[in-house]
Amino acid sequence: MTDEPEIPLVCVDLGSNSFHLLKASYCKGAFRILNKAKERVRLAEGLSDDHQLSEAAFQRGLDCLARFKEIIGNLPASRVRTVATYTLRRAANGDAFIKAARAVYPYPIEVIAGAEEARLIYQGVAHTQPGRDSRLVMDIGGGSTEFVIGRGLETRRLASLAMGCVSFQQRFFKDGKITEGGFKAAETAAAQELESIEQSYKDEGWQQAIGCSGTIKAVQACIQAKWPSESAISLKRLKALKKLCLQAGELQKLKLPAVNDERLQVFPAGLAILLASFKALDLAGLEYSDAALREGLMFQMEPGLGFQDARERTAASLAAQYHVDRPQALRVRHLALALYRALGDNPEHAMLLGWAAELHEVGLQINFHGVQRHSAYILENSDLIGFNQEQQLLLATLVRYSRKGLKQFALPRLNLFGDDEVRLLVRLLRLAVLLNRRRQSQRLPKIALRLDGQQLTLRFPAPWLARQDLVSADLAQEAQYQAQAGWPLVIESQE
Amino acid sequence: MTDEPEIPLVCVDLGSNSFHLLKASYCKGAFRILNKAKERVRLAEGLSDDHQLSEAAFQRGLDCLARFKEIIGNLPASRVRTVATYTLRRAANGDAFIKAARAVYPYPIEVIAGAEEARLIYQGVAHTQPGRDSRLVMDIGGGSTEFVIGRGLETRRLASLAMGCVSFQQRFFKDGKITEGGFKAAETAAAQELESIEQSYKDEGWQQAIGCSGTIKAVQACIQAKWPSESAISLKRLKALKKLCLQAGELQKLKLPAVNDERLQVFPAGLAILLASFKALDLAGLEYSDAALREGLMFQMEPGLGFQDARERTAASLAAQYHVDRPQALRVRHLALALYRALGDNPEHAMLLGWAAELHEVGLQINFHGVQRHSAYILENSDLIGFNQEQQLLLATLVRYSRKGLKQFALPRLNLFGDDEVRLLVRLLRLAVLLNRRRQSQRLPKIALRLDGQQLTLRFPAPWLARQDLVSADLAQEAQYQAQAGWPLVIESQE
Repeated sequence: MTDEPEIPLVCVDLGSNSFHLLKASYCKGAFRILNKAKERVRLAEGLSDDHQLSEAAFQRGLDCLARFKEIIGNLPASRVRTVATYTLRRAANGDAFIKAARAVYPYPIEVIAGAEEARLIYQGVAHTQPGRDSRLVMDIGGGSTEFVIGRGLETRRLASLAMGCVSFQQRFFKDGKITEGGFKAAETAAAQELESIEQSYKDEGWQQAIGCSGTIKAVQACIQAKWPSESAISLKRLKALKKLCLQAGELQKLKLPAVNDERLQVFPAGLAILLASFKALDLAGLEYSDAALREGLMFQMEPGLGFQDARERTAASLAAQYHVDRPQALRVRHLALALYRALGDNPEHAMLLGWAAELHEVGLQINFHGVQRHSAYILENSDLIGFNQEQQLLLATLVRYSRKGLKQFALPRLNLFGDDEVRLLVRLLRLAVLLNRRRQSQRLPKIALRLDGQQLTLRFPAPWLARQDLVSADLAQEAQYQAQAGWPLVIESQE
Repeated sequence: MTDEPEIPLVCVDLGSNSFHLLKASYCKGAFRILNKAKERVRLAEGLSDDHQLSEAAFQRGLDCLARFKEIIGNLPASRVRTVATYTLRRAANGDAFIKAARAVYPYPIEVIAGAEEARLIYQGVAHTQPGRDSRLVMDIGGGSTEFVIGRGLETRRLASLAMGCVSFQQRFFKDGKITEGGFKAAETAAAQELESIEQSYKDEGWQQAIGCSGTIKAVQACIQAKWPSESAISLKRLKALKKLCLQAGELQKLKLPAVNDERLQVFPAGLAILLASFKALDLAGLEYSDAALREGLMFQMEPGLGFQDARERTAASLAAQYHVDRPQALRVRHLALALYRALGDNPEHAMLLGWAAELHEVGLQINFHGVQRHSAYILENSDLIGFNQEQQLLLATLVRYSRKGLKQFALPRLNLFGDDEVRLLVRLLRLAVLLNRRRQSQRLPKIALRLDGQQLTLRFPAPWLARQDLVSADLAQEAQYQAQAGWPLVIESQE
């Protein structure tokens, strides 16, 4: 046993090509890496045209998770963070995979969106290579490639493009042949993806370019082995490597110094993406960073490193962008949290309820009519940096049903949140919105809450309620709405 | 025959309670009213719970339109504007009504949204009662009630609430009894509707309050008949009228000076809405204006009165609100219009294509991924002041299919635009977006366009196209996309 002064933490990254595990401990201001594991699961290779994970890929993923569980041992859930990226985001049976994983891997698996993946990669690089220059960070994965511009710990541009070394291998080099035509098709497809960001990235600009993950690591290793004096990747050497690939003519015959056989399979595909990126972004050179997504996760897990929860900033910036009526949002938030404290005690759930309250009117910029639909649309479709996809879906659901009818309400499919909790949060946010409908500071009386099964009882002081014709009418209407979802709501007046 | 120095114009308002016709001529800076007609069609009365117009209401509407056609005679379509409001907006078979109307009424019928209805009402009042005070204008219709705050010709708040004298008559006074309970329920329902606007309207404030249309006209007439010295409507007199209604106890027994029998049927319902409005908005008094929606329409129809097309301002303000990249939007607009000029010559269609180009990226504020869906969502759900509902749907459709796949494309159901025109506009906007994908000023070569049936051929100069790998790849991809919708797209290179 190593000497571990702190409870270690584990970060797991379920990528499209490889699953990675990083075990570390944090002590006196520094992380100490205790263990690293990597398995080439090739999840993306098992993704069919109709976005189904193949049985074989499904099983490889589960087997790997079972082995990771062995390494993790009995760490509490609070010390393990597991995120899944492109392939599990896209796979139609990604949810089934996550459900099946529970049997062998008892930690929550968070699927994260491309922009959040990009941000975490950037954080991994920024924390391990401090510096004041503005940077472009790129990460070619199995299914997606991320491009980020930032300075220090701040990001300014985030993008995740749907191109990766595994998916491009399948599309352009599937038959094992390496041809000019294959390279040209792959590079053109990559250039088409890059077309959407190249101008705005060049406008923003950067001083240093850094790449991470397997493809770029292999390219870098190759260049160092053949041209030992060169530390950075350059367009000239990329073209030389492409020539070597074309000379081999087939994946089977391809031999490159410092690149293992598994990586060689996806090397030409990754190289084509890298070439197209160099051309589209006019890159002069690219340095390699060993840190990436999992390190970004690691730095997020230790509080006290001077970060605030990224979600706090995301919520504040979204509220500002959509000109949310802040006093009103805070009134709703205040009441929602007060109601929640009477019936629940999960701090994470309380935080999500608070953000839902802060953001429930972002859709007013679109229209007051149907504001709940518009707000939900915005929350569903924005890059909510710092939130995983289930948290994002929960926020959108809370906001969607924050007013008006519940006939169409259906519980979202969530692995990280229980149905009862979701229902409770929906009901409490509705009440907080309803009781603030006048949009004024007001003294609400003490409201007693009781939950018996699905029946929620609110008790108001009789003298107050008797004076409130409109609130009474609104509450009566609300009881009808909640009944549509099968939730009995009882309003009592206490003498 | 009257002496008509100008071709007259006709404005027709298909309201939920009455259909109105206004015939006027414009000469030397002033309108002269030539004819007014009104029929109480009670369209809203025929609206069932599942939003179907009853057969009887449907027929009453068609009969009235046939009679209006007699009055209009053979005026050209450019001199007749016909708008439909709440009931035809809501009715599931509203579209069937408009289609059936074609047989007896050969003019286009535009369904307008609540906010546009509110704006036109305000314009009607503002033009006929000039003044510098800020004003609240309210109009209680058969199905909806509009509230507008403005000053001069500028509006600052627009709202259309789902309460009207016909719908409230059906909900609260259907059995013909006039009771305290009925009044209380109606006033509370109105107060609940008003809750959504009362605070923001009071915050904005106004100096003068003006009401228009049948309910307010009848109330005003009643007050003047009973209390001849009073020119404005006051809360005190509204309460007195309510007392008279309650004393009658039944609609059949209700007799009020200056109110005809037809209006009496919906008088208590309208009175309840007016009472609730006085209370919610703390109105001190309300003056009656004889001008309303149809006069607003009339003033819009004469150019040279110093207005710009309201749609121009709406598009500009939306683009600003969503921080649209204006140079890019203008590049796309410029090219789209140039392409359109080669194949079409309808100035109205060209304008709509131009606005679609200007607004096709409003959704970028939500997310780059799926921007076409987000832009369409915003355009579909915003109050697009000045646009009728079909124009709005056309804009949203153009933007929705301005890039990416066409598998899901379906022609929207439009009465004002032909399918071939819609298809052409969609295809041209796509090409204008595609050819500006680099988001830079560029010299495009001359592009020759040809349309044979559904086959669209673009011919580029060979030397230019040969240098454009990415554009060629994008065009090849585009031909595949258009094929998904069954639209052959041929790219030719001219030596």
